[in-house]
Amino acid sequence: MSQKPSIPKGTRDFGAVEMARRNYIFDTIKEVFTLYGFSQIETPAMENISTLMGKYGEEGDKLLFRVQNSGEKAALAPEKGLRYDLTVPFARYVVQHREEISFPFKRFQIQPVWRADRPQKGRYREFYQCDVDVIGNDSLVSELELIQIVEEVYRRLGIRVCLHLNNRKVLAGIAEVIGAPDRMMDITVAIDKLDKIGLEAVNGELQERGLNAEQVAALQPILQLSGTTAEKLTALRGILRESETGLKGIEELEEVFRLVESQKSKVESGLSIELDLCLARGLNYYTGAIFEVKALDAQIGSITGGGRYDNLTGIFGMPGVSGVGISFGADRIYDVLTELNLFPESLQSHTRVLFTTFGQDELLMALRWAKALREAGIPTEVYPEPTKMKRQMSYADQKHIPYVAIIGGDELAQEKVMLKNMTTGEQQLISQEQLIATIQ
Amino acid sequence: MSQKPSIPKGTRDFGAVEMARRNYIFDTIKEVFTLYGFSQIETPAMENISTLMGKYGEEGDKLLFRVQNSGEKAALAPEKGLRYDLTVPFARYVVQHREEISFPFKRFQIQPVWRADRPQKGRYREFYQCDVDVIGNDSLVSELELIQIVEEVYRRLGIRVCLHLNNRKVLAGIAEVIGAPDRMMDITVAIDKLDKIGLEAVNGELQERGLNAEQVAALQPILQLSGTTAEKLTALRGILRESETGLKGIEELEEVFRLVESQKSKVESGLSIELDLCLARGLNYYTGAIFEVKALDAQIGSITGGGRYDNLTGIFGMPGVSGVGISFGADRIYDVLTELNLFPESLQSHTRVLFTTFGQDELLMALRWAKALREAGIPTEVYPEPTKMKRQMSYADQKHIPYVAIIGGDELAQEKVMLKNMTTGEQQLISQEQLIATIQ
Repeated sequence: MSQKPSIPKGTRDFGAVEMARRNYIFDTIKEVFTLYGFSQIETPAMENISTLMGKYGEEGDKLLFRVQNSGEKAALAPEKGLRYDLTVPFARYVVQHREEISFPFKRFQIQPVWRADRPQKGRYREFYQCDVDVIGNDSLVSELELIQIVEEVYRRLGIRVCLHLNNRKVLAGIAEVIGAPDRMMDITVAIDKLDKIGLEAVNGELQERGLNAEQVAALQPILQLSGTTAEKLTALRGILRESETGLKGIEELEEVFRLVESQKSKVESGLSIELDLCLARGLNYYTGAIFEVKALDAQIGSITGGGRYDNLTGIFGMPGVSGVGISFGADRIYDVLTELNLFPESLQSHTRVLFTTFGQDELLMALRWAKALREAGIPTEVYPEPTKMKRQMSYADQKHIPYVAIIGGDELAQEKVMLKNMTTGEQQLISQEQLIATIQ
Repeated sequence: MSQKPSIPKGTRDFGAVEMARRNYIFDTIKEVFTLYGFSQIETPAMENISTLMGKYGEEGDKLLFRVQNSGEKAALAPEKGLRYDLTVPFARYVVQHREEISFPFKRFQIQPVWRADRPQKGRYREFYQCDVDVIGNDSLVSELELIQIVEEVYRRLGIRVCLHLNNRKVLAGIAEVIGAPDRMMDITVAIDKLDKIGLEAVNGELQERGLNAEQVAALQPILQLSGTTAEKLTALRGILRESETGLKGIEELEEVFRLVESQKSKVESGLSIELDLCLARGLNYYTGAIFEVKALDAQIGSITGGGRYDNLTGIFGMPGVSGVGISFGADRIYDVLTELNLFPESLQSHTRVLFTTFGQDELLMALRWAKALREAGIPTEVYPEPTKMKRQMSYADQKHIPYVAIIGGDELAQEKVMLKNMTTGEQQLISQEQLIATIQ
């Protein structure tokens, strides 16, 4: 047992400062979700294995963690698995609780998920997802509100972002007009890589996936569309004129842009929205708008993404319920805030003052003062025993506590403390009232 | 797939109102922990099975959930388990991160734990623990601060409680003086049941556990001690005069009572503290103070408990580190607040206003107004499509939204809304400014 203990690979401990920073992200997101009327729910870490299997493709099934009771024989134990994402448990929740829910149901969920992926830089076996969805109506006002949420979250965090917008119906229309209507997923999976592997490789992949030269050629004008959003949409309307689905997709895109325009802030928000026909997103349940958000000042890929789905709950026997949702990637947002040095300084320490003492009576006085400060809402610590000054100061230092209140014999006699500002080194002898005023 | 989906037995979904109430408990606890300078940490849901096994006794080992990768052969997969509590992961964390931690280390942790217990009323296979600990010093000031935290948490929640206090050294001293020094755990386990099964049954159990009649007789004065705390302590000091450990325990108890007395609030706190010699607590790692908190106005057992331990990290190769901690039972606190009807009314809905509309232009106006309200910090919803009044009102009703702002043609023309107070039924035609003022 004298070997240093460790944790399973791909998992993490979060220490005090890391947690304060993570909570800053989660709290910001939660506050904005709440402003828009979304309610938090939670589902259990374990789901019945039948709820999870077959929902994430063959590859996904292999990444499920299975859970077994220690005391039971494997064969007898009911099969359970750790949730792989928040989307399938949400669909299960909606179907299971359909009678209690008032639709449209606006929920958010911030919980960890588990995947038995090969651990690597930035990929973990346990990580948090922050999902927000509206389910039970197909109004594009929900798309607008999700865009506004993205705008507000990143405005509060101070990250400049670009929101990429596309529509699956447009992608379906494209597959239709190039004569490969059953190949939408192949086409979208290939197009999805345009940013990463370039046009030539995408064309190669399209042919490998069974499109003929003519079909690949027909795709080229679309892959190379340029100009303003309005120009692109006009060009696309021409290309897709024979596809009812494609035209519906264009209409939806136009309506979303119109709604966004109608609600434009006078305040500069830092959000730019871009029509991105190369955006496909891998998941096959999307049927309408799809979103992806990228930080403008960091090279890190998508930090938020999502889209509209028309039949998520169908897999659990409740068909035809439309919804739309997005997911914020907490780990990546954390990395962006770190890279751009955007975390507030105050997250280094919640504690504002440490009382240091050199005797029993001084300690009792410190405890009384600490109580008064806490009653004034100031997070306060008392070093729990009179000991060497150096040790008490280094505790304050390591915890990044901004003020130390020193109580020696003189201070005790005068009912005052010597307050040291740990940043400037300045010291002043002050009363309790002055102390509270200074800290606040 | 048309069968209604379900979740594993012993697990729970938490809907919107339940989550708001749970968050109210967690947030209250977190705020108080933070006021006292405790920092939040998190550890992974999965630990190496070697970290968990043998820490909870034979019975505990059987209740561990084991985790396996789907894709790997059982025999090849590294063994992992879901955490059973937050104490062992905390000990593992302290040892693993000893170099980065500044001691005394004041941490709190609020996360779910999993036990393959037989599910029954009030006992779940997944439930949250809220633990707060100071580790790395043996000053009784930490006991005082935990007592103050208990006082403040329950003051804020409005629950009147009694804190039961005892000391394991006193229990060890008792075992010593009745001539059964190696029987402390047998004696404490039996004494622990005094409240539940009564004196006679405890005496029977003591004999079953191997104490002779003389030893059981020697215990009687202790089991029946009465009077004030000071009287009890004096009597006990006589009984334990031959036991160094026992006397040390009495000294610690007296010092804790003295510290509490020295910090007494002028404000009535609702916390009473009682010396309870029958309090033993089951866990065998406690070595000093032990606490248990009971609600005065609800019959539900202990809602908070904990104690001092001198060697928690010893199992991971770091001996001699003293600490003290308590754990708040969120599920039981939830039940007490429900039974006593103490949850704030406002937790029914975060959303303060719902805009209802009857046309496209009205909807656009509602979206603009909603934006202004959100900028003023007011959680606001817009019913996402113009539809029947009845449907929109019933949405507000079911979500317990206190105000509905109705926009019809007249309101649109006048740039006003008809605000309906959903509690009183009152309606008034008001401007945006008035609306914001009314809601705030």
